[in-house]
Amino acid sequence: MKQAVNVSPNLNLRINSERLWQSIMQMAKIGGTTKGGCNRQALTNLDKQSRDLFVDWCREIGCEILIDEIGNIFARRSGKNNNLPAVITGSHLDTQPTGGKFDGVYGVLAGLEVLRTLHEYNIETEHPIEVVVWTNEEGSRFIPSCLGSGVWSGNFTVQESYKITDNEGLSVGDELECIGYKGTMIAKPRPIKAAFEAHIEQGPILEKEDKQIGVVTGIQGLRLFELTLHGKPCHAGPTPMEDRIDPIQAMLPILQCAYDLALKNGPWGRATIGQISTLPGSSNTVPETVKVLIDLRHPQTDVIETMASEVTNKVSDICKEMAIDYDLEEKWRMEVTEFSCTCINAVESAVKQLGYSSMKIVSGAGHDSLYIAEKVPTSMIFVPCEEGISHNEAENAKNEDLAAGANVLLHSILKIAK
Amino acid sequence: MKQAVNVSPNLNLRINSERLWQSIMQMAKIGGTTKGGCNRQALTNLDKQSRDLFVDWCREIGCEILIDEIGNIFARRSGKNNNLPAVITGSHLDTQPTGGKFDGVYGVLAGLEVLRTLHEYNIETEHPIEVVVWTNEEGSRFIPSCLGSGVWSGNFTVQESYKITDNEGLSVGDELECIGYKGTMIAKPRPIKAAFEAHIEQGPILEKEDKQIGVVTGIQGLRLFELTLHGKPCHAGPTPMEDRIDPIQAMLPILQCAYDLALKNGPWGRATIGQISTLPGSSNTVPETVKVLIDLRHPQTDVIETMASEVTNKVSDICKEMAIDYDLEEKWRMEVTEFSCTCINAVESAVKQLGYSSMKIVSGAGHDSLYIAEKVPTSMIFVPCEEGISHNEAENAKNEDLAAGANVLLHSILKIAK
Repeated sequence: MKQAVNVSPNLNLRINSERLWQSIMQMAKIGGTTKGGCNRQALTNLDKQSRDLFVDWCREIGCEILIDEIGNIFARRSGKNNNLPAVITGSHLDTQPTGGKFDGVYGVLAGLEVLRTLHEYNIETEHPIEVVVWTNEEGSRFIPSCLGSGVWSGNFTVQESYKITDNEGLSVGDELECIGYKGTMIAKPRPIKAAFEAHIEQGPILEKEDKQIGVVTGIQGLRLFELTLHGKPCHAGPTPMEDRIDPIQAMLPILQCAYDLALKNGPWGRATIGQISTLPGSSNTVPETVKVLIDLRHPQTDVIETMASEVTNKVSDICKEMAIDYDLEEKWRMEVTEFSCTCINAVESAVKQLGYSSMKIVSGAGHDSLYIAEKVPTSMIFVPCEEGISHNEAENAKNEDLAAGANVLLHSILKIAK
Repeated sequence: MKQAVNVSPNLNLRINSERLWQSIMQMAKIGGTTKGGCNRQALTNLDKQSRDLFVDWCREIGCEILIDEIGNIFARRSGKNNNLPAVITGSHLDTQPTGGKFDGVYGVLAGLEVLRTLHEYNIETEHPIEVVVWTNEEGSRFIPSCLGSGVWSGNFTVQESYKITDNEGLSVGDELECIGYKGTMIAKPRPIKAAFEAHIEQGPILEKEDKQIGVVTGIQGLRLFELTLHGKPCHAGPTPMEDRIDPIQAMLPILQCAYDLALKNGPWGRATIGQISTLPGSSNTVPETVKVLIDLRHPQTDVIETMASEVTNKVSDICKEMAIDYDLEEKWRMEVTEFSCTCINAVESAVKQLGYSSMKIVSGAGHDSLYIAEKVPTSMIFVPCEEGISHNEAENAKNEDLAAGANVLLHSILKIAK
């Protein structure tokens, strides 16, 4: 069997597609909903059950389990030389309250399937490989999202994170202890060679383009603005149009400008208006206040900056023209993340070798990889999901696509871990 | 003194401006707020106090008090021939919760001041004259507004109106009894020659045009639409713009169309968007539902109909183009009211005789005169209010303008009542 240890003879190695699917389905039962989705929020007893199941599966194939102080789990498979930096892969097991079976879970179990396959064929890599479960990616029970990877990468401190409470006042620190996943290992990067994360796309592009694999080159930059326009409330009947200070009239060209910028900077530009609220909200009164959330995204730093400044200028111009007072506040910012060329090349090369249809793609959503990429060479592998639906109990994906992604993950890792 | 009874020698007759102002200020103490406004909602104990004060004042000058079953008060001053139909004038004493000192009250007390002036100068008219206090014009405690004039004109039945409750479950019927204003007289028009209502403009036009009197020719027609646009919620990041079904993108041209129609049909066209709401209202999700209230007004029936149908067509066209499902519901409709030429002419002639600056104007708001005009020849007299502000504790008007309006009311009534 010694010969099987070399990488080159493993070109025909494939994960067990049926076993991957069964693992996902078994995990989905923990917190499974009647509509076929999952409600398994971070650090609940259900989260504990899913972690326990994952740990059991990893131990069955001889992995060492390491848990850090924020509850991130590292299932480590030794390499030939354990002094070499590990190659890591993983995602999260927590879900949205009305989440699906694949978001996060797929990335963890694709990683597990890689380890199982290597174990099954008795393949030893030069570098150790670790599958990671990051704590509280969804951020639906505890805000912020990506808490585990955020602490690990130094974006949040562990002590402050412990104090974060859910709606019932239960804290991250107490709940970690309660489910038995408050580890002793410091949450910070050890030497790591590369990181990969497999994930469903959560958008419609791959399905539409009929591609099985998305070679993810980075994560879009984001600017979230809260725009408040101050009008002068007056009666809808007696007040002539030219005497009004009407915040809705100002809002229209501003929002149109945001949409136009997204189109102009297509196909990757995005503008989303998720919330508009009017005060006092009376049918026969011009609103005193209108609040709007404007979400702009683009994968290039210069373009997202231009989009943001053009919207800012439009707000200023229109409000000056219409004599409207306003406040424009940047509520959130996500800088453009460009993934590592080494990792992207490894994925591309694996795809080519395996013969899957593929395209380069940029992630529109944030992921644990956003924080991981700050510290180590990282990239992601996307597979299609049905109609792009995610964060929804109807979330669905095809077994063949999930298997293709796991095979790409396997061979990407093999390229780096040797 | 017999000679004074003839109308022609009364050309120089004027109301007592100081007495009118003092009456308004005295009435304003009942429910007066610290910000200088009034909170005297319909059928409360404060409403009772204001009614009692009005009745006392009317009795002092020899008026007969009639109260109908819905609490409308008619203070009747006999004419030479009491078989002739009465000339009526009046408005309401109830206010908004954060109302002012003039809305409604002015019309009642200007009518009282007319009677006081006739009494003082011992002038006898051919027709009897009545000053009316209509019940619950504001509609803020009991919905609908203009309840008293609405019952009187046959738009609502008295039995159904009695059952209307406020937020605390107290009914119109019980509250009328409680304050002692559930009369026995049937609420329906007796023979009436003409009706006038003096009112503050509640808009900025007279002040802006520097006119003391608005000769009101009618009340605008109104169409209130509730538009519901159904989008497909999707993630703000991963979903390309061309794959979205975004109700906000559909909303923008529809609302712009409404504003454009108001301008195109200026200066009397009005479009007001008082309320927009988005569901689920998440910053990073294209809304599933957007609800918008669209208020359109114009004083000509053909124009308001055209405006309504153009907005309806725009909704249909845009939603078809963008593949958006929608519901468009007419929530309220106020037909165009054209006041009586006889009454308008009487007002215009009085204005000319008195030498006040004036202009023709259309009421943008509804008033008791809307319902009264369905049954008897009616018109209104507007006076300016500061910055057009109304339904607000800051509501203000000048003594000289209020006096001018009352003088116009006096001479308009004299022209009809002889």
